[in-house]
Amino acid sequence: MAGWKPRNADYAAVVRDSFARQPAMATLGATLERVAPGEVDIGLPFAAALCQQNGFLHAGVVAAIADSANGYAAFSLAPPGTDVLAVEFKINLMAPAKGDRFAARGRVLRPGRTLTVCLAEVIGFDGAEKSVVATMLSTLIIRPTEAIEAPR
Amino acid sequence: MAGWKPRNADYAAVVRDSFARQPAMATLGATLERVAPGEVDIGLPFAAALCQQNGFLHAGVVAAIADSANGYAAFSLAPPGTDVLAVEFKINLMAPAKGDRFAARGRVLRPGRTLTVCLAEVIGFDGAEKSVVATMLSTLIIRPTEAIEAPR
Amino acid sequence: MAGWKPRNADYAAVVRDSFARQPAMATLGATLERVAPGEVDIGLPFAAALCQQNGFLHAGVVAAIADSANGYAAFSLAPPGTDVLAVEFKINLMAPAKGDRFAARGRVLRPGRTLTVCLAEVIGFDGAEKSVVATMLSTLIIRPTEAIEAPR
Amino acid sequence: MAGWKPRNADYAAVVRDSFARQPAMATLGATLERVAPGEVDIGLPFAAALCQQNGFLHAGVVAAIADSANGYAAFSLAPPGTDVLAVEFKINLMAPAKGDRFAARGRVLRPGRTLTVCLAEVIGFDGAEKSVVATMLSTLIIRPTEAIEAPR
Repeated sequence: MAGWKPRNADYAAVVRDSFARQPAMATLGATLERVAPGEVDIGLPFAAALCQQNGFLHAGVVAAIADSANGYAAFSLAPPGTDVLAVEFKINLMAPAKGDRFAARGRVLRPGRTLTVCLAEVIGFDGAEKSVVATMLSTLIIRPTEAIEAPR
Repeated sequence: MAGWKPRNADYAAVVRDSFARQPAMATLGATLERVAPGEVDIGLPFAAALCQQNGFLHAGVVAAIADSANGYAAFSLAPPGTDVLAVEFKINLMAPAKGDRFAARGRVLRPGRTLTVCLAEVIGFDGAEKSVVATMLSTLIIRPTEAIEAPR
Repeated sequence: MAGWKPRNADYAAVVRDSFARQPAMATLGATLERVAPGEVDIGLPFAAALCQQNGFLHAGVVAAIADSANGYAAFSLAPPGTDVLAVEFKINLMAPAKGDRFAARGRVLRPGRTLTVCLAEVIGFDGAEKSVVATMLSTLIIRPTEAIEAPR
Repeated sequence: MAGWKPRNADYAAVVRDSFARQPAMATLGATLERVAPGEVDIGLPFAAALCQQNGFLHAGVVAAIADSANGYAAFSLAPPGTDVLAVEFKINLMAPAKGDRFAARGRVLRPGRTLTVCLAEVIGFDGAEKSVVATMLSTLIIRPTEAIEAPR
């Protein structure tokens, strides 16, 4: 899971720029904490507005940061002039998402010309305690930027 | 996929009450459109604040409404005094999530005493056009209400 | 889930020919029961040699026939000169795989130029009774035949 | 992923005994290579009889050894008097399953009283070369032995 060589010398800037253009991440309050070749960390402070009926972070919110972490991990190894879309993902919610803040780390398991496979872990930090909240296994597709359908 | 018999005569009220206590759904702007035994529809208007970098709804947001639809479909068949948590889900993002509004329909495939399996479909409505945006296959666990860890 | 138009006039012959070249299906005793555009049925008689420790069909065997059903459902809509590989799948084992015989029906949910999404259901027949044993959601990739790596 | 404490002092014997009662593993030619608390390795030599149409190991066979590896990893941490069943799994087939032999390593990510989550990796050995063929993320349920439905 280490030693991936980026195909874009500007991979970190390109990832940061794309993240900044994801309104959903800003809406949730998520921040890009770290970009390395094939590995990206996203942070999220707890917010009551993002919870389900028991006061835990909603599974969709946990999935959102894990999906972005895996997507940007894949994107960090993509060639210039491309973009990345999630094809599918599967997430196991291993413990109730409790805590003061959360961190999703996405990592490339297998980079490909067309398809990339990534694994993310979401950690919950509850004061001094830390627990694995979720694990996500994702498939991402790399497409030429012009092939991604234009935004609305 | 039809003809499920609810174990709680008040299933619709219980589902509506729980949905109303999910701040994440209100934050996204999602609404509970329909509750039937083993089948629940959730609606979501398009919002730029919920998009990814290409102007499509973020996969985590698509997952959030599909997860809630499956969760409440399972909950509609649960006995009184219980709650439902997602154990895991897998989602295929079949087309870019474009449209004016979206609808997630969750349906119980197999209700169980402990575990319930549900399938959700997310549809995007773009003016008169309609397309399947995503399909989610979920596993939910039914727990006595007191066994769900207390909220923060 | 119906009305798909095949891109290969010989789709049924091509599917039957490929199935006949899958030694794994013959080893399990599986047979191709039906080929329609975007829909394929595979049958499997019960065999003690394919069971796990409790006398139920092994989950891997259930997965094998569901995966082939989904693969050939996708292949039935593929253009001439291509082949299909499973990218990933997720299966819910909804009941112990008991019965005299089993049937996996794979169906295309969304055909694509590159990626196709399929849903399979595995049914167990126990005398006159019938139960849903498993549901599988798969992603398949269509590649030019020459791009598939040569066999050993 | 390390340091799990078994709840059954005889965990290794219990795993080996159960594996020996899985006819499907013998039919495929799979062998139990290693049992540790929360971690199990299964080996499989290449066999043409287990291939798909291109001469690669069939995805269902890859899934079968990964599923057994995850199942026995979970079982190695289960209390006496219980058995383990796969609830669901998701597998990414990351490269064509080529090689002289294969090894599936299953590992517990999160052991639970009811549900356990495991991650498996399947490696293909082609002479001196070695490649990751697949990754599987599974949910397993632990049940009292008497609650598992009797075999046929």
